[in-house]
Amino acid sequence: MAIECYFISGSPFAWRALLGLSLKRLDYKAIELHGSKGDTQTPEYLAMNPRGKVPVLKDGDVTICESLAILAYLDRKYPDTPLFGANAEEGSLIWQRTLEIEGYLTPAFVGLVRPVLFNQVDGNEETINEGIAKAKEELARYDGWLEGQSFLTGDSVSAADITLYPALAMVSRLAASLNNDKLDLSFLPLAERYTALASWMTRIEALEGFDETYPPHWRTQKAAE
Amino acid sequence: MAIECYFISGSPFAWRALLGLSLKRLDYKAIELHGSKGDTQTPEYLAMNPRGKVPVLKDGDVTICESLAILAYLDRKYPDTPLFGANAEEGSLIWQRTLEIEGYLTPAFVGLVRPVLFNQVDGNEETINEGIAKAKEELARYDGWLEGQSFLTGDSVSAADITLYPALAMVSRLAASLNNDKLDLSFLPLAERYTALASWMTRIEALEGFDETYPPHWRTQKAAE
Repeated sequence: MAIECYFISGSPFAWRALLGLSLKRLDYKAIELHGSKGDTQTPEYLAMNPRGKVPVLKDGDVTICESLAILAYLDRKYPDTPLFGANAEEGSLIWQRTLEIEGYLTPAFVGLVRPVLFNQVDGNEETINEGIAKAKEELARYDGWLEGQSFLTGDSVSAADITLYPALAMVSRLAASLNNDKLDLSFLPLAERYTALASWMTRIEALEGFDETYPPHWRTQKAAE
Repeated sequence: MAIECYFISGSPFAWRALLGLSLKRLDYKAIELHGSKGDTQTPEYLAMNPRGKVPVLKDGDVTICESLAILAYLDRKYPDTPLFGANAEEGSLIWQRTLEIEGYLTPAFVGLVRPVLFNQVDGNEETINEGIAKAKEELARYDGWLEGQSFLTGDSVSAADITLYPALAMVSRLAASLNNDKLDLSFLPLAERYTALASWMTRIEALEGFDETYPPHWRTQKAAE
């Protein structure tokens, strides 16, 4: 039985799991859920993930939640095309940078994206700008990591790249709708402010297996434009 | 050369690294730094960790930051007494719960501990109480995880236990100084509210190797009481 991965189109956390599966060229089935239809709140789904979030991965008897836990599991179970390096030494930098992105950038981006998506920017500008200030520091740092190498931890793609890419793709996509003059938008457009990251994004997008992970509803919207 | 681990006494993040080293019975040297003396801001230290935080682990040519990255590295390099299980299947639940604790409880606790330590509770009660509400949900959940088993992911200690313990120990210790009637302190004392977690803490404290990781300045203060 193929591995199953439950996702919501555009969820950066779920996208990580899909990228892990796809870049490793594993045989998997992506099962799309719709938050607006309550798909993540059914008793069946909550039995898999009591938090009602995506992604969830099912592989035989293993059911696993939390995107980075899924990447760690996949890499240990299916070591070809390693996401966490070929050994402990290579893995050390990859884990460090993966957790830096998750610990520093993710909360800053969530604090920006959530109010924008749920139309709660008004009155929260100060908090959002604090998050943006942190995000800017992080983005400058990651731009620097790319000096002299193609990916965030060396010359092959790793879990660190997979962890960062979906968040940047999402924020780039939201940028067009960010036209609030009380927000510090000096980090946009990302492609002009962080040129190394912009080139890196195109390298990720060119990887074999990337295309099939692209959020379905982004594709539809693109086609309609 | 022994492994070196830089720590600040009482830092829950550094304590995790020390616990990983010690529970694995590795030969290591714990190097105590003092934030108040600027030890983490020297050029030498910033060269190891540009964020100026603890812990940092040095093992031969490897220098690694971020507590969970350190645990992942140690387990891969020194697989005896595994912290992430004996195989991918066992590791899946351990990684999931480790990352749940880090993703949900840690930010809630940081949002409580920081204002208390830096005397910034006044005026921030509402935000702190939001964090406490989240922390309470998490603690109830983890208390439930312990039903029928000795540790958070089964009957042996794992990275999930190491990730949670220092944070709970710190919050228990701070509890005595939390006497602000605008804060929701209904989660205290932890030992009465979360009885399974309280028993689990005593089990952690009885583990071989635990004692040597105990924060030196807590020990001194205890002796002086």
